[in-house]
Amino acid sequence: MIIKINFSSETTINKQIKNQIIEGIATGKLRRGESLPSIRRLACDIGVNMHTVNKAYSQLRADGYILIHKQKGVIVNADQIRKNKKYKNILEEKISPIIAESICHGLNKDDFIKQCSLIFENLIPESKI
Amino acid sequence: MIIKINFSSETTINKQIKNQIIEGIATGKLRRGESLPSIRRLACDIGVNMHTVNKAYSQLRADGYILIHKQKGVIVNADQIRKNKKYKNILEEKISPIIAESICHGLNKDDFIKQCSLIFENLIPESKI
Repeated sequence: MIIKINFSSETTINKQIKNQIIEGIATGKLRRGESLPSIRRLACDIGVNMHTVNKAYSQLRADGYILIHKQKGVIVNADQIRKNKKYKNILEEKISPIIAESICHGLNKDDFIKQCSLIFENLIPESKI
Repeated sequence: MIIKINFSSETTINKQIKNQIIEGIATGKLRRGESLPSIRRLACDIGVNMHTVNKAYSQLRADGYILIHKQKGVIVNADQIRKNKKYKNILEEKISPIIAESICHGLNKDDFIKQCSLIFENLIPESKI
């Protein structure tokens, strides 16, 4: 999986790295046990500071998406995270501000749900859902 | 409208301020032309640094949610933002990582849409939609 950074995006680089790895896991491009590049290697490949990659990897590890072994390196650990029972609260905290913003941009509930549905299908084609 | 900061949240303080003002506009608690506290006043009221409030207000102004007049102070300017035709792209950029994260937490498309629908209704009761 190739990580592409948009240096003109409003999203911070560490968040772009984090988002793309989570998206890779969600879409099945990254599988449990698969190796990810080391901090140094990824920083070098995408041309960013090692601290930035370290921050992204630390957050991914804290959230249970990856493991960091001294010998084996960085490993995808997708199955662990399903155990987080509080995720619906986390989802509400993340989605609420986006809903508020959408309303301010003139979207009603049906518009918002339709957009979410389309974005979901773009990410994961119907056959995989 | 009272802004409440959760100092133990993962969301940065400037983003919490920004989110709550946008939510206030979306739910009709803040109306166009209404005054918001000055940077100094809000920083003092909620016990945060003036730079933090300044950052939130600057982003809100850049996105068209508020105006900052030298004489009139900080004013809600909700109608301007509806003109942003690129909002569907912005929405996709914001929602996609959350969808990916939800899939990793075991939610399928129906679960995700159902949760979004519930969160929308919690924010804006059916009668107001």
